[in-house]
Amino acid sequence: MAVYTDVTDDELAAFLRDYALGDVISCKGIAEGVENSNFLLRTEAGIYLLTLFEKRVDPADLPFFIALMEHLAGAGIACPTPIQARDGKALRQLCGRPAVIVSFLDGLWPRRVQPFHCAGVGDALARLHVAGASFAMKRGNNLSLAGWHRLAAATGARADEVRAGLAAEIAAELDTLDKVWPRDLPAGVIHADLFPDNIFFRGQQVSGLIDFYFACTDALAYDLAICLNAWCFENDGSFNVTKARLFIRAYRAVRPLSAAELTALPVLARGGALRFLLTRLYDWLNQPAGALVRPKDPIEYLRKLRFHRNVANISAYGVE
Amino acid sequence: MAVYTDVTDDELAAFLRDYALGDVISCKGIAEGVENSNFLLRTEAGIYLLTLFEKRVDPADLPFFIALMEHLAGAGIACPTPIQARDGKALRQLCGRPAVIVSFLDGLWPRRVQPFHCAGVGDALARLHVAGASFAMKRGNNLSLAGWHRLAAATGARADEVRAGLAAEIAAELDTLDKVWPRDLPAGVIHADLFPDNIFFRGQQVSGLIDFYFACTDALAYDLAICLNAWCFENDGSFNVTKARLFIRAYRAVRPLSAAELTALPVLARGGALRFLLTRLYDWLNQPAGALVRPKDPIEYLRKLRFHRNVANISAYGVE
Repeated sequence: MAVYTDVTDDELAAFLRDYALGDVISCKGIAEGVENSNFLLRTEAGIYLLTLFEKRVDPADLPFFIALMEHLAGAGIACPTPIQARDGKALRQLCGRPAVIVSFLDGLWPRRVQPFHCAGVGDALARLHVAGASFAMKRGNNLSLAGWHRLAAATGARADEVRAGLAAEIAAELDTLDKVWPRDLPAGVIHADLFPDNIFFRGQQVSGLIDFYFACTDALAYDLAICLNAWCFENDGSFNVTKARLFIRAYRAVRPLSAAELTALPVLARGGALRFLLTRLYDWLNQPAGALVRPKDPIEYLRKLRFHRNVANISAYGVE
Repeated sequence: MAVYTDVTDDELAAFLRDYALGDVISCKGIAEGVENSNFLLRTEAGIYLLTLFEKRVDPADLPFFIALMEHLAGAGIACPTPIQARDGKALRQLCGRPAVIVSFLDGLWPRRVQPFHCAGVGDALARLHVAGASFAMKRGNNLSLAGWHRLAAATGARADEVRAGLAAEIAAELDTLDKVWPRDLPAGVIHADLFPDNIFFRGQQVSGLIDFYFACTDALAYDLAICLNAWCFENDGSFNVTKARLFIRAYRAVRPLSAAELTALPVLARGGALRFLLTRLYDWLNQPAGALVRPKDPIEYLRKLRFHRNVANISAYGVE
């Protein structure tokens, strides 16, 4: 639940004068996303999403994100399209923060993931990867191995407050991943955060992908590994191989996976689980006083990490 | 900031099948209101507000609120219109809670109150009172004298944690109000909570009034007293008599105030200040663990109460 910045009506009116969107009809802070302030903005021209980037997003990264959304929308991916102001620039300032208006996407994100959702995610992720192949800009993944080492160092002294032995388990996992992390898989633009709240459906059809603010250049198969973590576990911690099979099969129908990519999935999935374990652990240990956002449970991802560590081969993910 | 209940996509789809509004296009929890869960709902038929009533609203009061909005909307007041399902009933159940879909109102609520806003509020409040005169249902004001006594009793033991001497000051104020509270002023439907976030403007024009969930039957002039508190103080605590003059003048242009109503304003304003002092104090002292809503400062209303206590006559409110 977000909305950190309260935009006054006069600030908003002044901001919109730079656009050709007509007058404001309404503007409501929406309770989604925890990184930025998001508003559902209606103007005489239509319905939009207004985002103010709060301090967790590096302003230097914003041109990459904006250009990526423009590129993907132009390639037919259903994703937010940045709206340019009269001067042709989409990235602007409001209330002292970088701000952007994007097109508003129809659909609902799935609160209860069903198997058909996983097939939709696989198809959409593969289309995203294919469309991203012609995107020229690069952005390194600052939440890969080096980033995990930084987060492990920042949380190590207090990790055992959350779970006895957690610091040692993270250190051992990092030692292993340093040795076995694959480095020459096909790379390109990855979403890197395609959780259920970042993909909308209308009925059984994907209607859009949102939140490209972790997107970066990395192994494409790592994006699948993140989705295996985000979509294929049940609330009781069990892994649903039917969902994984549908997800991977739908992906491969659009973009074939090489033998090296398939073989790497268990290690990539361990990395994906460690990434969310570490960021959640960091947030858990560093809750700002008076925060209005409840941090997510890091231990959920410790359990997922352990599952992937025990995977003998990729048939565990339903790969035929 | 609210949204307490997360409505799943399948629950929402099932709920909407009872309406003739078509399929869901999107549904976003909005960060307004602290009493209920509110969603901006788009369907094939249009844009609506979906409200789930959380535990602070007494379900027995809901038929009054729903009928009042229907009555006012029918009388030409720009307020949410309850949308009836196919069976003719607007009040329904969703996720185990009473729920209603109402029309969505255009406009923005004023974050920085300017004098013209106060004139708009006065005009809109008077029109509301006039339209309410033909509404047949009654609902007692459970946040008048008897309710204040209950709240004072519930907070008395710990009030001085917030400000030394506060419990005694509240008790003394209640003693006075018991003696001087006016009992035979013109009565009718009052909004009882017409704060800036409950009235929308487009430009300088009022575009709608919302949140009728404190509405009740009480002295109409008490509604003015609540607005004097809510609209006419600056952030530094000073009273802006220009705003009060514009507010009262605009009200009287639609509905004349009797001499008794005018004379009663200072006492009514003390009561209005005490009401919000007590409810804020109660919320301050009873924050649920892990609450995502930051309670409002009760002391702001202690200062307002003291201002009204020192008012010699109604010229202090700009009444000519």
